[in-house]
Amino acid sequence: MKVGFIGLGKMGEPMARNLLAAGHELAVYNRTRSRAAELETTGARVADAPAGVCSGDVVITMLADDAALEDVIFGPGEVLRRLASEAVHISMSTISVALSRRLSEAHARRGQLFVSAPVLGRPDAAAARKLFVIAAGPQQAIEQCQPLFDAMGQRTFYLGEDAPAANVVKLATNFLIIAAVESMGEAFALVRKSGVRAEQFHEVFAETLFSAPIYSNYGRMIVEERYQPAGFQLSLGLKDARLVLAASEDSRVPMPVASLARDHFLSAIARGYQDLDWAALARVCAEDAGL
Amino acid sequence: MKVGFIGLGKMGEPMARNLLAAGHELAVYNRTRSRAAELETTGARVADAPAGVCSGDVVITMLADDAALEDVIFGPGEVLRRLASEAVHISMSTISVALSRRLSEAHARRGQLFVSAPVLGRPDAAAARKLFVIAAGPQQAIEQCQPLFDAMGQRTFYLGEDAPAANVVKLATNFLIIAAVESMGEAFALVRKSGVRAEQFHEVFAETLFSAPIYSNYGRMIVEERYQPAGFQLSLGLKDARLVLAASEDSRVPMPVASLARDHFLSAIARGYQDLDWAALARVCAEDAGL
Amino acid sequence: MKVGFIGLGKMGEPMARNLLAAGHELAVYNRTRSRAAELETTGARVADAPAGVCSGDVVITMLADDAALEDVIFGPGEVLRRLASEAVHISMSTISVALSRRLSEAHARRGQLFVSAPVLGRPDAAAARKLFVIAAGPQQAIEQCQPLFDAMGQRTFYLGEDAPAANVVKLATNFLIIAAVESMGEAFALVRKSGVRAEQFHEVFAETLFSAPIYSNYGRMIVEERYQPAGFQLSLGLKDARLVLAASEDSRVPMPVASLARDHFLSAIARGYQDLDWAALARVCAEDAGL
Amino acid sequence: MKVGFIGLGKMGEPMARNLLAAGHELAVYNRTRSRAAELETTGARVADAPAGVCSGDVVITMLADDAALEDVIFGPGEVLRRLASEAVHISMSTISVALSRRLSEAHARRGQLFVSAPVLGRPDAAAARKLFVIAAGPQQAIEQCQPLFDAMGQRTFYLGEDAPAANVVKLATNFLIIAAVESMGEAFALVRKSGVRAEQFHEVFAETLFSAPIYSNYGRMIVEERYQPAGFQLSLGLKDARLVLAASEDSRVPMPVASLARDHFLSAIARGYQDLDWAALARVCAEDAGL
Repeated sequence: MKVGFIGLGKMGEPMARNLLAAGHELAVYNRTRSRAAELETTGARVADAPAGVCSGDVVITMLADDAALEDVIFGPGEVLRRLASEAVHISMSTISVALSRRLSEAHARRGQLFVSAPVLGRPDAAAARKLFVIAAGPQQAIEQCQPLFDAMGQRTFYLGEDAPAANVVKLATNFLIIAAVESMGEAFALVRKSGVRAEQFHEVFAETLFSAPIYSNYGRMIVEERYQPAGFQLSLGLKDARLVLAASEDSRVPMPVASLARDHFLSAIARGYQDLDWAALARVCAEDAGL
Repeated sequence: MKVGFIGLGKMGEPMARNLLAAGHELAVYNRTRSRAAELETTGARVADAPAGVCSGDVVITMLADDAALEDVIFGPGEVLRRLASEAVHISMSTISVALSRRLSEAHARRGQLFVSAPVLGRPDAAAARKLFVIAAGPQQAIEQCQPLFDAMGQRTFYLGEDAPAANVVKLATNFLIIAAVESMGEAFALVRKSGVRAEQFHEVFAETLFSAPIYSNYGRMIVEERYQPAGFQLSLGLKDARLVLAASEDSRVPMPVASLARDHFLSAIARGYQDLDWAALARVCAEDAGL
Repeated sequence: MKVGFIGLGKMGEPMARNLLAAGHELAVYNRTRSRAAELETTGARVADAPAGVCSGDVVITMLADDAALEDVIFGPGEVLRRLASEAVHISMSTISVALSRRLSEAHARRGQLFVSAPVLGRPDAAAARKLFVIAAGPQQAIEQCQPLFDAMGQRTFYLGEDAPAANVVKLATNFLIIAAVESMGEAFALVRKSGVRAEQFHEVFAETLFSAPIYSNYGRMIVEERYQPAGFQLSLGLKDARLVLAASEDSRVPMPVASLARDHFLSAIARGYQDLDWAALARVCAEDAGL
Repeated sequence: MKVGFIGLGKMGEPMARNLLAAGHELAVYNRTRSRAAELETTGARVADAPAGVCSGDVVITMLADDAALEDVIFGPGEVLRRLASEAVHISMSTISVALSRRLSEAHARRGQLFVSAPVLGRPDAAAARKLFVIAAGPQQAIEQCQPLFDAMGQRTFYLGEDAPAANVVKLATNFLIIAAVESMGEAFALVRKSGVRAEQFHEVFAETLFSAPIYSNYGRMIVEERYQPAGFQLSLGLKDARLVLAASEDSRVPMPVASLARDHFLSAIARGYQDLDWAALARVCAEDAGL
């Protein structure tokens, strides 16, 4: 397929590379052009503006936040205006439910198709085509895009016609991660202050009832107090918490664990931890316990 | 080995049965004698009082709460007074860290050995010898008791000489379960009010990053809103939350997620849910969101 | 002075009336023109658009929220463009710190003066000239506007040159009200479920250590469970909580009591209480306790 | 009247002095006898054991906590056994609702009268006879004791026949203080990080809507960051929070603000602030915000 790709960050770059490797015709755009260099050598066309990647069947966006995406679609990036009727915009980064709703409506008004398809997985999973894709939008568009999802991920979950549903599920899953890290942070503080070695406790839960990647991997980071280099920055964790809380407010759903995690993220940043991995939430728990 | 077993509840009964099946010589006591009937037919001796099971190498207690255990050991049960020097008391139920400390000291003063060995797993795991045993206490005693643990569980974690350490780890693990249920409760409320079907969200997290029994099983209960019959009663969940908070207070460790779970347990009981499964925490989250 | 006044709601209408009574020359604008009728009979000029009240020394805005104010100043209302250089814009409603900052900068760029002057007090206080004015902005502008503040309030607090400071202080004070109501809600639930009559408890605290209007008045509303008619709607309380949390996020300040109040506001609205007085937070506390 | 007084701490000593000054015949007991010396010079009889002050019409207890009171009444102090039938025990310190219930029943079984009469006010108020007395118990006993209350306090609130009601109301009032301090702590952190001077904010709320002693006095302590010497130690604040939470658990009342205050007290003690005034809760809020 003829695909435009906007946003070549830690996640976008390997995703684009996998599309190229799967034989798709790729035009890419990134604000910092140098990040596109390697893709260029392997066959991607590099555009100077978002508008330059809009002539194909599909445009994929993988941008840092709502503001960046708004700029590209509605603002000076002009993607909304340049995209052909019947073309598909796949938004794959973590954005607000509200923006997803707005995109869904705006594209529909122009006869374009909007698919929301955020992913689960870190850069290493992106590189290894092991992402999980959470997709929602017009079924016909999803089916059309399936080869792209297959080129980037190991499995696609289809959540129905309403695009913002994918964003809600993505945010709710990120919330579960945040909650798991916060909970482990509190639990580790308790066992450590009680004289138990952290790795012993980790073994007990991660090899029994909590034998899942989240508990195993983040648990190990907390045991080793190893929050650098950041796989996912704490400041981005705050952004996610904010998006979760915004969705909860729009839907009138109290989420007290999300609220307290937000407060811990703020305290973490007030302590200077914004560039650590978001698992450093556990450091806040430890420090609050005098550790 | 010659073993006394006190407390034949939903957990204790299958545990005792497995000890018998493994060839140990068993004397049992239960306040309600009728629960011992089946064990009697398969070879256990049934005593009329706790003192009647204290003549062997080991006494195992599997009682409902601190008060019941105190009665049996320090109170009218007289186990402390009747147990031989060098004999071992293995406490396997979920009790407070403070009582574990007190037992450890009291037995030591009499030349007896105290092993704290709470377990992870529900009655079905107990029946299938699939429990996880979290053990701490004098190494010599632990080694001596290993055949008993092997007869009841699939794996033993040894946490060192200080018996209360096992109770802290058990409580910290139960806290992680409570936190996971609370978090799922909030997340499900969010996705449901956003128009996503609960089972779709469950599939996304339980088959990707959260592929652990806790998330899979409790998640399914929440999806199906199936809180009866209770695998573990909500009122017992409050008890566990209280023990976690008592330990956190003694150790000066803030545990905000535990605190808010306590408040949700109280609200659940105020709404009449004390006999539902503790996963009904999620019902409180749903109702608070107007669902 | 020659004053423009935009926004004749429950607060704005009596404030404008008092300016008129104090002899100021008043031009008013309200989206729903009929609300201006009475003022017209007592001498105010009624304009058809915000731009129509911008020809004097001062424009006062008293609008419902950020969006309404943005529309009037930056958007189709065109106040920013129409206001003379050296003219003063006094923003007296509760708005975000971020918007106050933006207004401060935008007016300064045009040589206009921006004063932030939110008020404490309900409509009855506005009618009785008993408001408290929390003012910040260029000292010269504040001094110039002092006669206006004196016509509307009983006392002006001057917080310095930085206009957004007044908004922070206003929001922090509103937060203290929210926190007091939430706390009373929890305390009343406790005493009521313990068999104590609510009015007895109210007497104890409101006539001793908490002899302040907030505790006396809101306490009485909770005792009488009288949340209608709303003095200040619960849905506006959520708005204020959101503004507090936005400020706390910008400043990296954890505010756990604000966070939990937000969640209770959401639950209140999910239960259908959006049009009750915001003291109905206490009803959420009571219901969560099974009352 | 002939009065026995047990517990001559910071509160008990001035209370006993005022009883003496009002002409009552006083026998006193304190674990550390030296604290009774001054009272002896002004006419009190000093006993060597609690039993030595039980021969009169009334025994007043003003002890540090539940354990101390249990020792004196049920334990080696033997007050329960020594007190005459028809004699009155007035418990005036802050104790648990559960112990109050137990005392009420135990005294009743012996034909003795139990009055629960905790007080509001600090040592300076005790010295100045300005305490507020919150009394509950048999009406006849309360009436009989009124002259004693008048000698110690400025006003008595009568809460009915059920003695524990007084303890619930006392604890609920202490909770309101804790909540006010916590709330101010968060609010001050917000305004300070926003560049507003703390004393300016204090002036705004304490001289307007929050013109009550609690906000004025504790607010000033927070402004001046003056937490020593402690009027009421933070470690005692944790004790009060624990009693509030115990009562809330018994009554099935979620109290999220109390829960988070508990966690902040724990963090404060983990940071070494146990001997500061309990207003140092606000220091935890400030530090969590990076101040």
